[in-house]
Amino acid sequence: MKLLFLGDLVGRTGRTIVIDQLPALVEEQQLDFVVVNGENSASGFGITEAILQDVLDAGADVVTTGNHVWDQRDTLVYIERQDRLLRPVNYPKGTPGRGAHLYTARNGAQVMVANVMGRVYMDALDDPFAAIERVVNECPLGDVADAVIIDVHAEATSEKQAMGHMLDGRVSLVVGTHTHVPTADHQILPGGTAYMTDAGMCGCYDSVLGMDKEEPVNRFQRKIPGNRFTPATGDATISGVAVETDDRTGLALRVAPVRIGGHLEPVLPDFWST
Amino acid sequence: MKLLFLGDLVGRTGRTIVIDQLPALVEEQQLDFVVVNGENSASGFGITEAILQDVLDAGADVVTTGNHVWDQRDTLVYIERQDRLLRPVNYPKGTPGRGAHLYTARNGAQVMVANVMGRVYMDALDDPFAAIERVVNECPLGDVADAVIIDVHAEATSEKQAMGHMLDGRVSLVVGTHTHVPTADHQILPGGTAYMTDAGMCGCYDSVLGMDKEEPVNRFQRKIPGNRFTPATGDATISGVAVETDDRTGLALRVAPVRIGGHLEPVLPDFWST
Amino acid sequence: MKLLFLGDLVGRTGRTIVIDQLPALVEEQQLDFVVVNGENSASGFGITEAILQDVLDAGADVVTTGNHVWDQRDTLVYIERQDRLLRPVNYPKGTPGRGAHLYTARNGAQVMVANVMGRVYMDALDDPFAAIERVVNECPLGDVADAVIIDVHAEATSEKQAMGHMLDGRVSLVVGTHTHVPTADHQILPGGTAYMTDAGMCGCYDSVLGMDKEEPVNRFQRKIPGNRFTPATGDATISGVAVETDDRTGLALRVAPVRIGGHLEPVLPDFWST
Amino acid sequence: MKLLFLGDLVGRTGRTIVIDQLPALVEEQQLDFVVVNGENSASGFGITEAILQDVLDAGADVVTTGNHVWDQRDTLVYIERQDRLLRPVNYPKGTPGRGAHLYTARNGAQVMVANVMGRVYMDALDDPFAAIERVVNECPLGDVADAVIIDVHAEATSEKQAMGHMLDGRVSLVVGTHTHVPTADHQILPGGTAYMTDAGMCGCYDSVLGMDKEEPVNRFQRKIPGNRFTPATGDATISGVAVETDDRTGLALRVAPVRIGGHLEPVLPDFWST
Ligand SMILES: [Fe+2]
Ligand SMILES: [Fe+2]
Ligand SMILES: [Fe+2]
Ligand SMILES: [Fe+2]
Ligand SMILES: [Fe+2]
Ligand SMILES: [Fe+2]
Ligand SMILES: [Fe+2]
Ligand SMILES: [Fe+2]
Repeated sequence: MKLLFLGDLVGRTGRTIVIDQLPALVEEQQLDFVVVNGENSASGFGITEAILQDVLDAGADVVTTGNHVWDQRDTLVYIERQDRLLRPVNYPKGTPGRGAHLYTARNGAQVMVANVMGRVYMDALDDPFAAIERVVNECPLGDVADAVIIDVHAEATSEKQAMGHMLDGRVSLVVGTHTHVPTADHQILPGGTAYMTDAGMCGCYDSVLGMDKEEPVNRFQRKIPGNRFTPATGDATISGVAVETDDRTGLALRVAPVRIGGHLEPVLPDFWST
Repeated sequence: MKLLFLGDLVGRTGRTIVIDQLPALVEEQQLDFVVVNGENSASGFGITEAILQDVLDAGADVVTTGNHVWDQRDTLVYIERQDRLLRPVNYPKGTPGRGAHLYTARNGAQVMVANVMGRVYMDALDDPFAAIERVVNECPLGDVADAVIIDVHAEATSEKQAMGHMLDGRVSLVVGTHTHVPTADHQILPGGTAYMTDAGMCGCYDSVLGMDKEEPVNRFQRKIPGNRFTPATGDATISGVAVETDDRTGLALRVAPVRIGGHLEPVLPDFWST
Repeated sequence: MKLLFLGDLVGRTGRTIVIDQLPALVEEQQLDFVVVNGENSASGFGITEAILQDVLDAGADVVTTGNHVWDQRDTLVYIERQDRLLRPVNYPKGTPGRGAHLYTARNGAQVMVANVMGRVYMDALDDPFAAIERVVNECPLGDVADAVIIDVHAEATSEKQAMGHMLDGRVSLVVGTHTHVPTADHQILPGGTAYMTDAGMCGCYDSVLGMDKEEPVNRFQRKIPGNRFTPATGDATISGVAVETDDRTGLALRVAPVRIGGHLEPVLPDFWST
Repeated sequence: MKLLFLGDLVGRTGRTIVIDQLPALVEEQQLDFVVVNGENSASGFGITEAILQDVLDAGADVVTTGNHVWDQRDTLVYIERQDRLLRPVNYPKGTPGRGAHLYTARNGAQVMVANVMGRVYMDALDDPFAAIERVVNECPLGDVADAVIIDVHAEATSEKQAMGHMLDGRVSLVVGTHTHVPTADHQILPGGTAYMTDAGMCGCYDSVLGMDKEEPVNRFQRKIPGNRFTPATGDATISGVAVETDDRTGLALRVAPVRIGGHLEPVLPDFWST
């Protein structure tokens, strides 16, 4: 099965490149399932229902989020009718929306996707390790699910790595988001789980986290807020990770980064067709 | 000029692969100057004078550090006589050792290296932006220095990116350390400075930060310390970044990641000889 | 019903003054129930079973703890047989010991005590608000319990105040610990719950958190660890809060601070006998 | 010399009680010098020039601030012409306004006031210990200054206590602000400096930090922002600390808390006239 995961879409520049190019990627690479983190797609802050629809229409099967999920206030309402939008699964009981769900892929396979938020250097939600343990156990890979994808939205590399090791052999892919910088540590862990500490963002990399660089640099130097943060408008990069899973076990056979356009060195999986 | 920077050496496995392979790399690639972050080289915690000497003997011109610099208590003493060992420049006035220095490279060029620690999610030292501004201004690139290398030891990607943009056009390389995971965002910024958010570690990547994975996973799940952290002993990866600078301006002409051995996908600069 | 709560015992000086003077206080004031936070009683770090026994023998009915609960490694073992020692209730499922329990007071009344740890600026445990909501609902005041005492071990005043308001009218006392400084905001909230942001410590107040002041001051200035932290050995103060509850409702009728000895201004409740 | 320091004014209720009652206090108690922390006086966020003027007119000689100093954007402008408004002294070089200044008291004495912000659990400014060391050394007590007052705006009790000990014998008063809860640890340190970890706020104590309690409690439970924070409108308490200094040495002879009105137990210094 061919999976693609794209990191945090940042602003118009980030969502436009994905909406423009994802349809062709899905078609040409015969991608079975695509997950996109959309927490910064609305001017850097959250996601509107219209943008969600655009991203789904472009070929995303699921849109995950993170700490910015509620930045657009009506997300609390529309998330209830949008089961392809996930918020972190470890929000307190009673939180609108869902954090994990089983979907049917283009090829008819069952794919479980879960979104979870770390707690190191972040506002503390419920235990991410216990929460993921629960949803993964409810949906065993190679049995109920043909593939399982975990988006670990977290700051600390240690927390993401620990999540990867805890799940190794039980899910198809553990991929981090939130730092907005792609890591180069993609690998298949000993138990067969594909892992990458951060998928990076889809946005302009001549920036600070995808936002225009002037104001963040100014704040670090002056310690006084000046203007608002606005998304950088330069050329964007699509950044993510591709996985090929074993149809029988659901574990990863191959993992490779995807980076297209913008300021970063381009790379496509060598197991993709050209 | 050909520069190489290697990220945090972690434990015996990390320092051994560097000590074993660096001499040949320097020789074959005709590297003019090599910087290695050594803050975790002594069982994960700090660096001893003997290890420092081994790393220098292997071809490092300078060893940088970070928050773990004082983990070995006698570092406070021996750092005074070892001017090739740097500690973060933004420790308070009166701190033993130095945080920036001008060195003579193998090719006779003058190379300024500075080590600075971020403050986001870290114990707060003095202002890293003001401190680096000072040392960079004292040692203008293309004038006093033929190359300037800044090791930003920091947790947050935003802080490292802001440092890169602040220095763009005034130094040869801004490279991050501390997260122990290499990033894939190496690029030459608009002003000519090579940038990479994190060099990654030299250590075993089937681990948590280079340490044996069992105890960290256990702590995240149980929230109770069990055993001590010990470096993972599996196959290590050399991880870092290579830069070629313009001899006249000192700015970057090319930048590329270096990853050799262990669990990560290997990569060498295409501007290196084969 | 007459309740007394004493804040974190720090080191020998802190536990000695409590062990020496608590028996007479219990006797003279006819205290029905005494809770003592003991997380720093063993040289500042955790509590041994022998010290626990000494504090119980001196008249404490229950000993609560906090983030230092596991500093003495055998606490993980002996806590299972010591049901008068509480660890924060919001440790993950499966953690040894208990975080809340119903006890019989000297006067035969049933007293529920719960210990919970905050998450703001602290290592994140499970949701303290949900955890306390659960134990309080299982043990309704004025029904199952004649008094309910909540020790909120937390750093941020906001988190402690929020806990107080959430529980107002449903417990007898919400009192904070952990900052080692007594607050002067004792009050009965509108719903009838006695509240005080921090009970303070039982220890020497010519110190930093009860520890000898030299090393902490040195670390703040130099940012380099020098020596170990050791408890200050000067005159100690007993610091805590006294509550009188309505026997019928279990709510608070009176609340007042208790401070005896050492460097702080002494104060006893005016509803105590003299 | 008779000094009074009042903690953070929160919102209309906090500033009104101070503006109403301070004139009589100054008159009746013959106060020589009054400092008020005003960082939350404008609806909880910063201070306007009009409010500043009102507080000065009511009898404050100096208004200190903290992390909220720039919440009202024009403070960056008007602070330049208002030398009785202080912002933390450890903002980066070039920050508008001043962080320490020498004033003439009603009795003709020279009083140096400095405002400094801690770094533990707060956005990191420059080293508060080095910054205060500098201003205190420039203005020796008993020589240039007849009294020296330090407002340590900080979260952690340890950092405030360390500041107190570092300055003991060299200033008249070290008093903390920021937690909005008065502490009961007022004391004269061995060297003669009056110390109190937090002055508390002037505002409504049936609240969370002086803000209406509903929204903060909701956020702790739900982890989702609902409405904006607005100051509580209930009865306010004036909260602060009074010091009597030795006219010759400038050191403290007496220190005592001041709490008037609202939900807290009232207390006035026994060395005040009645
Ligand atoms: Fe994001
Ligand atoms: Fe995020
Ligand atoms: Fe490191
Ligand atoms: Fe580090
Ligand atoms: Fe404690
Ligand atoms: Fe504690
Ligand atoms: Fe405040
Ligand atoms: Fe504040």
